[in-house]
Amino acid sequence: MLLHTIAEVREQIRIWKKQGLTVGLVPTMGALHEGHLSLIKKSVEKCDKTVVSVFVNPIQFCPGEDFEKYPRTLDADREMAESAGVDIVFAPSAAEMYGEGHIMSNDFLTYVIPPFFYVNKLCGKSRTGHFDGVCTVVNKLFNIVQPDFAFFGEKDRQQLIIIKKMVKDLSIPTEIIPCPIVREADGLAMSSRNKYLNEQERKDALVLKNILFNIKSCYNSGIKDTEALAETAFNFLKSCHSLEYLEFRDKNDLELKKTADKDTIVFIAVKIGNVRLIDNISLEN
Amino acid sequence: MLLHTIAEVREQIRIWKKQGLTVGLVPTMGALHEGHLSLIKKSVEKCDKTVVSVFVNPIQFCPGEDFEKYPRTLDADREMAESAGVDIVFAPSAAEMYGEGHIMSNDFLTYVIPPFFYVNKLCGKSRTGHFDGVCTVVNKLFNIVQPDFAFFGEKDRQQLIIIKKMVKDLSIPTEIIPCPIVREADGLAMSSRNKYLNEQERKDALVLKNILFNIKSCYNSGIKDTEALAETAFNFLKSCHSLEYLEFRDKNDLELKKTADKDTIVFIAVKIGNVRLIDNISLEN
Repeated sequence: MLLHTIAEVREQIRIWKKQGLTVGLVPTMGALHEGHLSLIKKSVEKCDKTVVSVFVNPIQFCPGEDFEKYPRTLDADREMAESAGVDIVFAPSAAEMYGEGHIMSNDFLTYVIPPFFYVNKLCGKSRTGHFDGVCTVVNKLFNIVQPDFAFFGEKDRQQLIIIKKMVKDLSIPTEIIPCPIVREADGLAMSSRNKYLNEQERKDALVLKNILFNIKSCYNSGIKDTEALAETAFNFLKSCHSLEYLEFRDKNDLELKKTADKDTIVFIAVKIGNVRLIDNISLEN
Repeated sequence: MLLHTIAEVREQIRIWKKQGLTVGLVPTMGALHEGHLSLIKKSVEKCDKTVVSVFVNPIQFCPGEDFEKYPRTLDADREMAESAGVDIVFAPSAAEMYGEGHIMSNDFLTYVIPPFFYVNKLCGKSRTGHFDGVCTVVNKLFNIVQPDFAFFGEKDRQQLIIIKKMVKDLSIPTEIIPCPIVREADGLAMSSRNKYLNEQERKDALVLKNILFNIKSCYNSGIKDTEALAETAFNFLKSCHSLEYLEFRDKNDLELKKTADKDTIVFIAVKIGNVRLIDNISLEN
């Protein structure tokens, strides 16, 4: 069923909890693709009831980002979710989430702020306030849905690590289930923002997975020095690619790695034309 | 029963929730007095089960404040609570709440940050970061105990307003129950910090309630201009009193009032010797 208000969701959850049913939450901004679907399937499999939230959260976009043009496809999202066995699609308005006139500055709204050490790097560096907005809305969704499990894609790995940290720090009674990146046939990590790419850019976008996969095979062949591993990237970068970052960091606390090991994640962000894409790979197994 | 770990509390709460019982939470820093007792009694009356947390929360004290010397009287607290019908006294260590080595800066800890407009005034002005620490620990306690109701004294009125705002902004499924200020026979508002007062200071401390009660009677006799009402305070202030603030603000959003009305709260803070005391009064009824 499609619900738009917090009160309706709460009421349904209350009934399920009373029946002793477990609840899974898949928080999304809609424009659902196979990546989201893999999270949804995992939740439907693991939990008695599954809620998918569809909310393009204004407070996680920075000025100048793509909030206005972010794809909104609620009818298709709902169909995809319900076909996969989702029980509630929760699609609130910004007014429902942040109040009429929804004043969203931290002058008038309570925020959940992740630790500075986790946000002052990678995507947090260029996207000021992004993870504050993410933690605030996810925290709020957790309070509304009270899920036993919540499913997050490893595609947004920094987000996943920050959410896990929030859950630990605030003792939130929800278990976070990470889900592997889903890739197109040619290896491009699925993302709602891939829709922004034109035909040429779509080809150029393969640079992210090419760099990551090559680093992993170099690592597997014995190169552990992260500086040496990073240098292999330059064989792939062309003038159409603007590299934002390529970094080797710990999978739990995002500490920088000088020597790669099984706990290392390789993070990459590249701008192609006007489209900013991210990807990452674990060096484990 | 006295519990020290989050896991033990969670387990007990899980059992109660399964039985469909309602849970009340009274968050305290211990050193329980009649004021706390009135909150506890209200919870025991209203809820099937009552949890009292006793935790001197390090992150809500500013540098130079009384964290070290804040009274700690757990044995007496436990006895008072259990005599009043409390089911769990939850007294965690700082390490249990914030991790071993408990690094408590926002470099490494997720914080819940109330809106700037609510904290840049009254006590928040002199106690930098205080309400960040309060919201963070209360949010965490709510996640651990998952109370249906939580009880807060009107003595800390700015805190009460900020907690209510947090609950609304983050859709926390807990109802906040405000409880009236409890006063000593001579009118001094009860506070754990009253223990710091020597005999003379204890007498001088009546200035807070004298000013507030006089303002209320002036208001009742027809004076509505807050500047005129504030001026009546100077008849009570002596050289032993250092007035920090005396302000007229809205009971919901803390907006400054030029004209007093039934939605007005009069807030006062006075330092007597080294002891800082606060009090407030509603002009309703």
